[in-house]
Amino acid sequence: MKRSERLVAMTNYLMNHPQQLVSLPYFSTTYAAAKSSVSEDLSIINDMFQHEGIGYLQSVSGAAGGVRYIPVYSKENSAAFIDELCRKLADSDRLLPGGYLFMSDILGEPATVNKIGRLFATAFHDREIDVVVTVATKGIPIAYAAAAYLNVPVVIVRRDPKVTEGSTVSVNYVSGSSRKIQTMVLSKRSIPDQANVCIVDDFMKAGGTINGMKSLLQEFNANVTAIGVLAEAEDEEEERVVEDYTSLIKIQNVDVRNQRVEVQKGNYFN
Amino acid sequence: MKRSERLVAMTNYLMNHPQQLVSLPYFSTTYAAAKSSVSEDLSIINDMFQHEGIGYLQSVSGAAGGVRYIPVYSKENSAAFIDELCRKLADSDRLLPGGYLFMSDILGEPATVNKIGRLFATAFHDREIDVVVTVATKGIPIAYAAAAYLNVPVVIVRRDPKVTEGSTVSVNYVSGSSRKIQTMVLSKRSIPDQANVCIVDDFMKAGGTINGMKSLLQEFNANVTAIGVLAEAEDEEEERVVEDYTSLIKIQNVDVRNQRVEVQKGNYFN
Repeated sequence: MKRSERLVAMTNYLMNHPQQLVSLPYFSTTYAAAKSSVSEDLSIINDMFQHEGIGYLQSVSGAAGGVRYIPVYSKENSAAFIDELCRKLADSDRLLPGGYLFMSDILGEPATVNKIGRLFATAFHDREIDVVVTVATKGIPIAYAAAAYLNVPVVIVRRDPKVTEGSTVSVNYVSGSSRKIQTMVLSKRSIPDQANVCIVDDFMKAGGTINGMKSLLQEFNANVTAIGVLAEAEDEEEERVVEDYTSLIKIQNVDVRNQRVEVQKGNYFN
Repeated sequence: MKRSERLVAMTNYLMNHPQQLVSLPYFSTTYAAAKSSVSEDLSIINDMFQHEGIGYLQSVSGAAGGVRYIPVYSKENSAAFIDELCRKLADSDRLLPGGYLFMSDILGEPATVNKIGRLFATAFHDREIDVVVTVATKGIPIAYAAAAYLNVPVVIVRRDPKVTEGSTVSVNYVSGSSRKIQTMVLSKRSIPDQANVCIVDDFMKAGGTINGMKSLLQEFNANVTAIGVLAEAEDEEEERVVEDYTSLIKIQNVDVRNQRVEVQKGNYFN
């Protein structure tokens, strides 16, 4: 196989296998090329990934070595994407009762959700993460996008048990916004003991939902090593109960009466 | 920029923009290369995509022409993936009451879900589809994966209205398995009038849920042009109420007492 052909095939392979260690022999066998040629190919790919701002190839030396594609998104790419997202969201037509913003259309675009996932995977690329956990419904696509780049599975906390989950563990908690007791359930088989968990959700006000997830995860002896929310907003009635989270956007100065809202970059960009 | 570098960058770009028409001038401007060089690059990429079984580049001639990456997965790749999935699922430990199979762990793997989406996008690549619709919860990641390859948005039908959806349309229907009246709601802003819709879900027995979605979509004057389910299984009590669907796997001869189940390729492979 020619270099030009190998470069296309290897780029495809690496993009589909982020965070996975790939041995040089794997490439030289698959594409019938000398190890030295494969090394040069990887050097070209590494340069171009950095040039495009989509990450880099990490070399791991030794007998069990190889390369690993670390899909960190460049600061320029990240800021440009979030600036554009803020512009789209800062539309007074999106204001809903309770100071929420209608985001379903934007969260319905796979390419947008994919980039949101990229940003979380970039923010958390050096943390210990075994699994991404979210709660149904809106956080799910974001969680999958982040998990794909982190190369870990997703576990979904539900509001209601379902027969297809098998036996479950549940916790009750008080939601900040509704002041009602709510339930969260998680399949017993879903998370191994003492897993390192990244929590992801689409929206956070006081943080009651995320706190509920933390309580539930304690039942599995999990360590929460990262918390990512797409949008944070202030709760008028309650103080924030979650610290040490990463937000991509911040919704501020919601004025339902005058139909005004400000959307800015979140604390990830501080 | 050298050919080798362009090939990496263009492969990355095309993989991230399936089904989108990209003009040759875009590539020659972005990578500062002559149109003839870009054409040769695209020819190499096209050959390799076909060689790897991940699709092909469609040329569109004329002033508004360019290339479009059609991400159809080869028959060999598709069959190999589904065979492996069937093997994983045909484990009696997965049997749940009611003849359901525990699939949450497998549906929690982003790479697996991504391939399921690729298969649906391959099955439906020549149909008119403006939007992929699914119902919360398990179908969501599959719907996003398919929609990413089809380059269309996702709309999620919910079981319960939520303030962040704005005003909604709802229908009641009788679920086949539970014989209970259930509700489905969809945000009014979510689907344009007369859209072409692809319905995707993880599991279908008699098809009551999918029929419910069809009823709800009638309220939006939508045309259902494709229905894809990951797994179909027979319902012991009710005849199937949905025709003209595509399934990737078929769960058969469920014997809860003797803890046995058969999992085979679905009708997509007929």
